[in-house]
Amino acid sequence: MAFKSDIEIAREAKKQPIKEIGEKLDIAYEHLQPYGHDKAKISQGFIDSVQDRKDGKLILVTAINPTPAGEGKTTTTVGLGDGLNKIGKKAMICIREASLGPNFGMKGGAAGGGMAQVVPMEEMNLHFTGDFHAITSAHSLLSAMIDNHIYWGNEAQLDTRRVTWRRVVDMNDRSLRQITSSLGGVANGFAREDGFDITVASEVMAILCLASDLKDLEKRLGDMIIGYRRDKSPVFCRDVKAEGAMTVLLKDAMQPNLVQTLENNPAFVHGGPFANIAHGCNSVIATTTALKLADYVVTEAGFGADLGAEKFMDIKCRKAGLKPDAVVIVATVRAMKMNGGVAKADLNNENVEAVKAGCPNLGRHIENMKKFGVPAIVGINHFYADTDAEVQAVIDYCAEAGVEAIVNKHWAEGGAGIEATARKVVEICEAGEANYAPLYADEMPLAEKIETVCKEIYRADNVVMDAKIRTQLKEWEAQGYGNLPVCMAKTQYSFSTDPGQRGAPTGFDIPVREVRLSAGAGFVVVVCGEIMTMPGLPRVPAAESIHLNDEGLIEGLF
Amino acid sequence: MAFKSDIEIAREAKKQPIKEIGEKLDIAYEHLQPYGHDKAKISQGFIDSVQDRKDGKLILVTAINPTPAGEGKTTTTVGLGDGLNKIGKKAMICIREASLGPNFGMKGGAAGGGMAQVVPMEEMNLHFTGDFHAITSAHSLLSAMIDNHIYWGNEAQLDTRRVTWRRVVDMNDRSLRQITSSLGGVANGFAREDGFDITVASEVMAILCLASDLKDLEKRLGDMIIGYRRDKSPVFCRDVKAEGAMTVLLKDAMQPNLVQTLENNPAFVHGGPFANIAHGCNSVIATTTALKLADYVVTEAGFGADLGAEKFMDIKCRKAGLKPDAVVIVATVRAMKMNGGVAKADLNNENVEAVKAGCPNLGRHIENMKKFGVPAIVGINHFYADTDAEVQAVIDYCAEAGVEAIVNKHWAEGGAGIEATARKVVEICEAGEANYAPLYADEMPLAEKIETVCKEIYRADNVVMDAKIRTQLKEWEAQGYGNLPVCMAKTQYSFSTDPGQRGAPTGFDIPVREVRLSAGAGFVVVVCGEIMTMPGLPRVPAAESIHLNDEGLIEGLF
Repeated sequence: MAFKSDIEIAREAKKQPIKEIGEKLDIAYEHLQPYGHDKAKISQGFIDSVQDRKDGKLILVTAINPTPAGEGKTTTTVGLGDGLNKIGKKAMICIREASLGPNFGMKGGAAGGGMAQVVPMEEMNLHFTGDFHAITSAHSLLSAMIDNHIYWGNEAQLDTRRVTWRRVVDMNDRSLRQITSSLGGVANGFAREDGFDITVASEVMAILCLASDLKDLEKRLGDMIIGYRRDKSPVFCRDVKAEGAMTVLLKDAMQPNLVQTLENNPAFVHGGPFANIAHGCNSVIATTTALKLADYVVTEAGFGADLGAEKFMDIKCRKAGLKPDAVVIVATVRAMKMNGGVAKADLNNENVEAVKAGCPNLGRHIENMKKFGVPAIVGINHFYADTDAEVQAVIDYCAEAGVEAIVNKHWAEGGAGIEATARKVVEICEAGEANYAPLYADEMPLAEKIETVCKEIYRADNVVMDAKIRTQLKEWEAQGYGNLPVCMAKTQYSFSTDPGQRGAPTGFDIPVREVRLSAGAGFVVVVCGEIMTMPGLPRVPAAESIHLNDEGLIEGLF
Repeated sequence: MAFKSDIEIAREAKKQPIKEIGEKLDIAYEHLQPYGHDKAKISQGFIDSVQDRKDGKLILVTAINPTPAGEGKTTTTVGLGDGLNKIGKKAMICIREASLGPNFGMKGGAAGGGMAQVVPMEEMNLHFTGDFHAITSAHSLLSAMIDNHIYWGNEAQLDTRRVTWRRVVDMNDRSLRQITSSLGGVANGFAREDGFDITVASEVMAILCLASDLKDLEKRLGDMIIGYRRDKSPVFCRDVKAEGAMTVLLKDAMQPNLVQTLENNPAFVHGGPFANIAHGCNSVIATTTALKLADYVVTEAGFGADLGAEKFMDIKCRKAGLKPDAVVIVATVRAMKMNGGVAKADLNNENVEAVKAGCPNLGRHIENMKKFGVPAIVGINHFYADTDAEVQAVIDYCAEAGVEAIVNKHWAEGGAGIEATARKVVEICEAGEANYAPLYADEMPLAEKIETVCKEIYRADNVVMDAKIRTQLKEWEAQGYGNLPVCMAKTQYSFSTDPGQRGAPTGFDIPVREVRLSAGAGFVVVVCGEIMTMPGLPRVPAAESIHLNDEGLIEGLF
C-alpha cells in the first residue's frame, strides 16, 4: 500500500487564517499576536478576561510503554480532538512544542500523523513562535550573570566547584556536554568545569510550563538553586538578581500558541519540558486557558503512563489544581506484539498469541490509572496490517481488565475515524465518575514518595537508595522542600530500569542513582539509571540532507 | 530642561497597524508575514514581483569618529527619512537590528532617539522577529556538525588544532571566550580548545547581510572556511554538508523586517553585522528591496565614516551593485568640542575655539567621501546647549571645505526639524552628480588594498605587516581570494589605532596584527589592534534592574 507522507498531507492542508481559528474561540484579532498567518499567541488580556468562565472537561491521552513499533499518542490526541468536534462538541487540544535541535539528528517529527495532525508542521519543527529561543536566552542570561557575579567579587560566595547551573543550547552537541570555561587568564574569569544540556532540559522550561502567570514565573525563577557555598547552603537565582530580566525575556514565550488541526479545529501547542528530568507536559497556562475556551480539552503527557501520566497527575494536576475527567490509554496491536516478544521486522505477520502475551503491559497501565481515581478507556490505534483476531485479542483483554477498548482509525480517516471513542469519552465525562487524587500526599516524606511511585506504579520490590541520597532528601526536607512531588527520571521503555524488559516485569529493584532539587519548578528529580540531557548527532545526521528545493520547499526535514 | 525619555516617547507613539504600513508600500497583507500587529516580514514572492521596477535614490548617513558626546547617526537616518516624507517624497529607511545580549550589560539602545525613532522599540531590543536567534541556531548547527564530523571519523581530516570556526551565543559572556570542549571521555569526542563570540560577530550574520537571495546565501555558507588540515589546506562548511540545513534555519531570517517610524513612515530593520570584523551595514536584501519600493532610501553604516562608510562603499555597494547618490555626514557641536580637547563634563559651556579645533576630524571625513565620488553634505545634529556661534563655526568650516552644513532638529521636532536637509538631499540626488566608485579595484593585491585604505582614508604613514601576514595574503591570492575587498577591524574612535587620538592625527603607522579570511562573506578581515568579539557584563549589569512592573511594562531596559 502507498500512503502519503505526513509532510505531504500537511502541505496539502486547507488551513484557515489564524484570525478565523481565533474567531471560533471568540478571540478578537487584537487579542491574537499573529506569527505569520497560521500561528498566533493569545494575549494575557484575553486570558484574564475569561477567568470567570466554567472549566471544560479535561481528557488525558497517555500510552503503554513506548516501543520501536510506535504507538501514536499525539496522533490519538489530535484525532480525538477532531473527533469530539466532529460529533458536535466544542473541543480543543493542548500538546507540547517540538525541540529544534533533535530534528538535525534524526528526521523531525510531525505533530500527530496521517490525517490527525496539527499544522503548520514545518514551522512547528523549526523556530515556531520563538518560545524555545526565548528560554535559551533566559537560561543563557542567568549563566552569564553567574560567572559575572563570580568575576566581580562573588559576593554570594558561590563555591565555583559547586555551581549546579549548567548551560543550554537547542542543538544536539555532545562536545559541549563537559567543558572547562573561563580559560585564558584574568580577563576571562575563574576557570571552572561546566557543561551544556539541550534547552528542553532547562529548569526554565519546566517552570514556564508550570507557572500560572508572569508573576509566578518570576518568583519560581528566583527560587531556582544555581549552586552551593562551601558550607553547602544553597545560592539562588535571586542572589544574582537575574529573575526579573529573565522574565522580560520570557514574557511572550509565556503566552499559549494557537494553531489548527488538519480539520481546522483550534489547538494550543505550548511548552515542551523533558519527560524524564522534568514533567513532560505542555504548559499549565495553555491547559487552563483551553479549559475556559472549550467544553472538552484533550491533552497528553510524555512517554508511557508509568512516567508521563504519573507526572501529569502527581505534578501538573496537583500543582495547577486540575481535575482530569477521563484517560485514554493508547495501545497498538504492533506494540503489544513487541511486548510479547516479536521482533520489529516480523510485526506485519499475524500473531495473536504474541498480542496476548504483550497485553499485561497495557493491563498494568490500566490498573495504575485507577489509582488516580480517573476512569480510563483504551484507544487501539489501528495500523493497516492489524488483523481482526489480533484487535479482538486486545479488546478481550481489556474487557477482562474492566475497561472498554475501542479501535481508532483517525490516522487514515481523521476525526471521523475516532468518533466512537469521542462519544465514549463524552459519556464518561458526563457521568462525572472521575474522582481525581494524586498518588501520595504532599506531606509524605520524600523517600516515601519515591518508594510509593516505584512500588505502586512500577511494581518494584525494593528501592535502593544509599545513605548519601537519604541524607540529601532529609536535608531538603529540613530546608522546607519536603512537600514537593518527586519527578522520576527513568527509562521509558520498561517499568523497570532495564530498557530491555518489556511487558509487565516483576522481581526487580529500582536503584536511585542521584537526586536533584528543581526548587523553582517545584519537584525533586529522582534519577534512576543513565539519563541523557544532551544528545549527540548520529554518524549521518539528518542535517546533511536537509535543504530548500528549487521551489523553496524544505526537503529532508521529515 | 526636562525631556521625555526615548522609551516614554516610543510608548506614546500612535503606531499604525503594520497592515496599513504595508499598504503604503502597496504590499498586500498576504505578502506580509506579521509578527504581532506592529512588525512584519516581507515575502520573497513580493520581493520577486518588484524586481523590474526602477531603483530609487540611495542616501548614506555616516558620521565623524564617535565620541562619548554622542553623534546621533541613527537619529539622523530616521529623521531624514521622516523629513523626506514630510516634504512629499516617498522615502524609506533601512537600518540594522539590535543585538540582544549587550542590552543586559549596559542599557539597551533605541532605534534613533527623541522624536526620530523607529518603533516598537522594546521588541526591537529583545527577540524582534527572531532573526538573530535563527543566526545563532544556524551557527550552532555548524558547530555541532563539525565536532560530530570529527567524532565519527573525521573524513575531511580537519586538524583539531586548526578549527577556526568558533561558537556563538547572543549574550555578553566573557567566561565562554576560551573553553576546552569535548571533555569527559570517549562518548563526548576529542577534547580541543574552542570559544564563543557574540552572535553579531558570526560570519553567518555577515553572509545574511550580503546575500542576494537564499540560493546565494546557501552558496556563501558552503564557502565558509571552518578550519585547516595538517597540510594547511582549508576545510569548508560544505565538507561537513551543513549549508543546506543552515539555509533552512535562515529562510525566514532572510526576509526584511518592516516596522515604522514615530511618524508612521515605513522602515526596514534587518541584519546587524559587527562593524569591525564585518562590514556593519543592514542587509543587502532590505536595501535593494527598499530601492524598489521608495523613491528615496536612507541608510546608515556603523561607526564613523573612516570605518563604516568605507566598508559601505568598498564592500556592500561594490558587492551588491549599489550606487549611492548622496552622503550625509553627521556631526555635532559637542563632538567637535571633544575632538578639540574639551572634557565631557564641560560640553555645555560655549567654546567656539574648541569647536574650530575639532573640525579637522570632520574635514578629513568630508575629503574621504569625495574619494568615492559621492556628493556629501554635513548634518549638524542640534543639541539644546549648542550656541549660535558654535554652530556657525561648524558651518563656516564646512563652507571652506566646500560642502554645505545644515542644522537639524529632528530629535526635538521629528521630520519637520530636518526638512532643509531633506530638500538639499533631493537637490543633490536630482542633480545626478554622484559618480560612485570604490576606493580600489578588485584586482589590486590584498596587501596593497590594505595600504590604500590605511593611507587614503586614515592617512597613516606606513602599514606595518610582518612577513607571516604578507605570506598569508599571498597564499589566499594563490587560492583565488585575491579579488576580495578588505574589511578593516580597527578602533572606531580615531583615524589611528590609538583610541585616544581624536581630531585628524598624522604621523602614525597602522600595525596589522592578524588577517582572517571570511570566504563566505567575501572579505579579508584585517585586524589592527585589540578587537573584542565577546563582550563581558559590567559589575552591575543592567539585567539586575530589568523587570516587568505591575502594569506589565518593561522597566530598566532603557
